[in-house]
Amino acid sequence: MGDDAAVLHAPDGRVVATTDLLIEGRHFRRDWSSAADIGHRAAARNLADVAAMGAVPAALLVGFAGPGDTDVDWVLELVRGIAAEGAAAGASVVGGDTSSADTVLLAVTALGDLAGLDPVTRSGARPGDVVALAGTLGAAAAGLALLMAGAQVQADSALAEPIAADPAMPAPLRADSALPELVQAYRRPRPPYDAGPQAAALGASSMIDISDGLIADLGHVAAASGVQLELWPAELAAEAVAPAGALAAAAAVLGAPDWLRWVLTGGDDHALVATFSPGVALPERWTVIGEVTRGHGILVGGRRWSGPGGWDHFRGSDADGAQAIG
Amino acid sequence: MGDDAAVLHAPDGRVVATTDLLIEGRHFRRDWSSAADIGHRAAARNLADVAAMGAVPAALLVGFAGPGDTDVDWVLELVRGIAAEGAAAGASVVGGDTSSADTVLLAVTALGDLAGLDPVTRSGARPGDVVALAGTLGAAAAGLALLMAGAQVQADSALAEPIAADPAMPAPLRADSALPELVQAYRRPRPPYDAGPQAAALGASSMIDISDGLIADLGHVAAASGVQLELWPAELAAEAVAPAGALAAAAAVLGAPDWLRWVLTGGDDHALVATFSPGVALPERWTVIGEVTRGHGILVGGRRWSGPGGWDHFRGSDADGAQAIG
Repeated sequence: MGDDAAVLHAPDGRVVATTDLLIEGRHFRRDWSSAADIGHRAAARNLADVAAMGAVPAALLVGFAGPGDTDVDWVLELVRGIAAEGAAAGASVVGGDTSSADTVLLAVTALGDLAGLDPVTRSGARPGDVVALAGTLGAAAAGLALLMAGAQVQADSALAEPIAADPAMPAPLRADSALPELVQAYRRPRPPYDAGPQAAALGASSMIDISDGLIADLGHVAAASGVQLELWPAELAAEAVAPAGALAAAAAVLGAPDWLRWVLTGGDDHALVATFSPGVALPERWTVIGEVTRGHGILVGGRRWSGPGGWDHFRGSDADGAQAIG
Repeated sequence: MGDDAAVLHAPDGRVVATTDLLIEGRHFRRDWSSAADIGHRAAARNLADVAAMGAVPAALLVGFAGPGDTDVDWVLELVRGIAAEGAAAGASVVGGDTSSADTVLLAVTALGDLAGLDPVTRSGARPGDVVALAGTLGAAAAGLALLMAGAQVQADSALAEPIAADPAMPAPLRADSALPELVQAYRRPRPPYDAGPQAAALGASSMIDISDGLIADLGHVAAASGVQLELWPAELAAEAVAPAGALAAAAAVLGAPDWLRWVLTGGDDHALVATFSPGVALPERWTVIGEVTRGHGILVGGRRWSGPGGWDHFRGSDADGAQAIG
């Protein structure tokens, strides 16, 4: 810091790099998340992309812009959140830039180290491979739905003050003690960073970070690899993959038609999905959720998915950011 | 492109990294610069920071956000400008992100390779060293002043259509054929990228990219190195450093009191200034503009400079973005 640029060690001789923009009102809301939460999420999103290549996160560069009257303590808390999430993944904040802007925006770049392993891309899935997941699906999307339903929910995400204790929250949102964990999953996703290098070491044939929803993101893998991915609904609904009890409670509170949609189309949890040769002995953290077959696109329970993230299947079209799949 | 992150070669085992935010209305105006110009400038700013560490630029990551109705051709031209400037410096665009936003904004990250040389920081200047410059000072600041004075100047910066040919421009701005080169210097600065690694190879004791103005940026070197930098006015006014004839013409047209202020406080040209042991034989592109002595802060012609970028000395205070020096 203080020089024109930072110098990082790249002992492997390669470096993995990714960048993201996060804009207030589009990627976060200050009334839904604390500054620290926003920092954690912004960093997690990039760090998970590094892990999804099979690399160990090493460094973050952070561009911050905001209105001139932005509270300095708020900004410092944001930066501490970014640094803390980086530290949890093994990365340091090594550089940055600040500017003024009408709204708060963040540009986060994450760099990572492959530690001698080959990068894992989206294009190597082969028929016969198993599809396996590390991390959680659906929790963050359900948490976001809860926040959207109860906008007066408190922004402080400290676990010492669970949102269920907030008397300003609509009564239904206080009804189930499982709901705060969903909101917390949205505010501070916990990507399984070390599962990325682990998958690379196990010889994963492809890998991706689930940020736009399982169907949409695996659609990218299917297209890049020229294969079809068949997903198994029972495995997707297992506790190892999704917090089914909490999701069902949230669906009931919100009058949502089907909580599995959060599992299939929800982003923001940043689980990792990889494909492996069927003979690979997978550690317990990896749950097999399907298999790779000849063809194209995604099948769930043998049915073809199409449209924006499969959303059509549930309740008509919705522009929730999920992407079209083939 | 297409995977979660890019993989770059870093044969040196280290990587130099820097990031910048550029926001419409603050860092660029669409009526003053073409999309390609804005792209060139955005990339140049970061690539020059990499060069100022003594590194060879290798890669760019680009975050772009803009209103949903932004013209696609404009965006593509912007991206081509970034890629072209990167190519001129030896860097490829390897990744990026797009989003929607109320105004156009760019987040550019540049990565570079030290090729076995030590990075050159701001803190190594020693009394007895010479201060030398590669590149140009003042031209971009004068060009910006011309644009501010004649807002109807045409935005197309193609050299085939020099701004002097624009009949809509106020008559004084068409008076001198040297003026278009100043506007062009603002729109498409030409940092001497390869002078950075050259200085590192010559054993430069410190180096910095001049982006906030000579006085302000050398103030950082003086502070970080714990030394005083004495600059020589005659050398700063030499054609090798500043286009004195064009600057004088612009000052006359604009009624500006002193064109040397553009040389001393103008940013955006992205010249490189380095300090070297006095025994180093400098290639012709490096012009000695002063010397390092014991003390602190900056002297110009033996006079102490203070206040925002030395601006006080010329015509009272001005908040033109130059920074305070010690």
